[in-house]
Amino acid sequence: MNGVALSEVAPRDGLQSIGTFVPTETKIALVKACYEAGLRRMEVGSFVSPKAIPQMADTGAVLQFAKQLEGLECTVLVPNRRGFEAAMTAGADRLGLFMSVTESHNKANLNRSRADSLADLAAIVREAPKGTPIRFNLSCAFHCPFEGVVPEQAALDLVEQVVALDPEMEIAICDTTGNAAPDQVRRIFERAIAAWGKRFAYHGHDTYGMGVANVVAAYEAGVRVFDAASGGIGGCPFAPGATGNVAMEDVAWMFRRMGVETGVVWDKLLAAADMAAAIPGAVPGGAMRRVPAARKAA
Amino acid sequence: MNGVALSEVAPRDGLQSIGTFVPTETKIALVKACYEAGLRRMEVGSFVSPKAIPQMADTGAVLQFAKQLEGLECTVLVPNRRGFEAAMTAGADRLGLFMSVTESHNKANLNRSRADSLADLAAIVREAPKGTPIRFNLSCAFHCPFEGVVPEQAALDLVEQVVALDPEMEIAICDTTGNAAPDQVRRIFERAIAAWGKRFAYHGHDTYGMGVANVVAAYEAGVRVFDAASGGIGGCPFAPGATGNVAMEDVAWMFRRMGVETGVVWDKLLAAADMAAAIPGAVPGGAMRRVPAARKAA
Repeated sequence: MNGVALSEVAPRDGLQSIGTFVPTETKIALVKACYEAGLRRMEVGSFVSPKAIPQMADTGAVLQFAKQLEGLECTVLVPNRRGFEAAMTAGADRLGLFMSVTESHNKANLNRSRADSLADLAAIVREAPKGTPIRFNLSCAFHCPFEGVVPEQAALDLVEQVVALDPEMEIAICDTTGNAAPDQVRRIFERAIAAWGKRFAYHGHDTYGMGVANVVAAYEAGVRVFDAASGGIGGCPFAPGATGNVAMEDVAWMFRRMGVETGVVWDKLLAAADMAAAIPGAVPGGAMRRVPAARKAA
Repeated sequence: MNGVALSEVAPRDGLQSIGTFVPTETKIALVKACYEAGLRRMEVGSFVSPKAIPQMADTGAVLQFAKQLEGLECTVLVPNRRGFEAAMTAGADRLGLFMSVTESHNKANLNRSRADSLADLAAIVREAPKGTPIRFNLSCAFHCPFEGVVPEQAALDLVEQVVALDPEMEIAICDTTGNAAPDQVRRIFERAIAAWGKRFAYHGHDTYGMGVANVVAAYEAGVRVFDAASGGIGGCPFAPGATGNVAMEDVAWMFRRMGVETGVVWDKLLAAADMAAAIPGAVPGGAMRRVPAARKAA
């Protein structure tokens, strides 16, 4: 198949840092717009502590809606047993587990050691209802806000442990800070795919302008599943100007120009990107959405 | 040498579309700021018809200033004999010739056929004072606003004719619309370098978000000279939101993360980028300049 699967993460990664609560109807409208744009994989929210991330408190309701959309594979993020139980109660049938490659980011983000995270998540992999598709996301696999550039072997060592949990599970190697370098991305995925096959996904941000370049590097290494956010939304209200996930429309355009199928419906994708970018508090990113000639060409 | 040469084009490509005349002192301040940032190659202006592009009417004065900066290789663009003569009169000692790969863009931009442009520029190559470094720029080598995606053989056929003019001359293969695809960029440079050696430069825009990805593709194909504009300025006041050249700071950061020497002085480069972005009428682009954490990391 000459194609890639694009996974929409705006409803989760794009919204989670917005300080003001985004109404559930707005989140549902965004999910619907992305679905209408032809996107068939989506991270619709996360079951994390509503005290830590109040923005995700209504993930259950968003999931309820998303599950009705035919053919949509909707995932919710789960960092631990409590989140797993909440996800099951809410009727989730696809899970996204996550932990960090670096000890200091895992502690800052999840308030526990990597060993504790891995043990907890390994138990969830064992205990999840048979046939539940699970993706295991490894944050800060390339660069960490506390530890800087991550040694490639450290990332691959954790990948190896995660591979051992399940022979089929999708594993996302994630550039959380947007500071992965294209050659680093290419090398890690080449090594991972050579060792463990084509089960890997790439999740990247565009903070330093390397977002699309890193997607290309991962694609050339053999990756065929990519996360992106319509409108490039994300960022943090406490770091003005910070950008979020690489923009879905930029990634989809790049693949289109490379002759790679994505399944997107262009006018609807631009509408979804515009909708995401207009959500109060969202910090939009990306390039092609803003250029009239580019929009017209699409 | 594990390094690349970055050529600053903000004073020319970044400013030329601004409707309001940018005062000569502002242009000179920008040249100075880029020089202080460690950039040692620069396109300081162009000798084109001041009726067609009034913004470049003071290129002679900017060149006068730039020539005093020790170690700066400053180029002026020249589209034809009249421009060549004006450049010589103004004391230019490095020339950037240019024409388009596509007939329709050459006619729209230079009001003549490619055959006429090539004949005129070939005569300039022959007649320029011995030892004058000349770069030959080929616009719309990947994508044309009128003809769409440019067949690779069409670009390479023109490259071959230009190669024949001089055994040493640098040749820039340019993505004028920002719509070149990374695989296309890689293939063209691989073929050009295999046929004619490492004499090629890449000039790209970031209109669709592929700017940095295309720089990586050209680098991996063997290119070691890149154009970029501090602040990513450019765009056209008649196409709101259009972005300009790929941002110098994003390109320099990507090379830094890849361990490739650029010679830039980071705090000064960010200052130059901020200055460029603040010029009234300029449409800034790029990513990392806007992110406080990224600026701090630099």
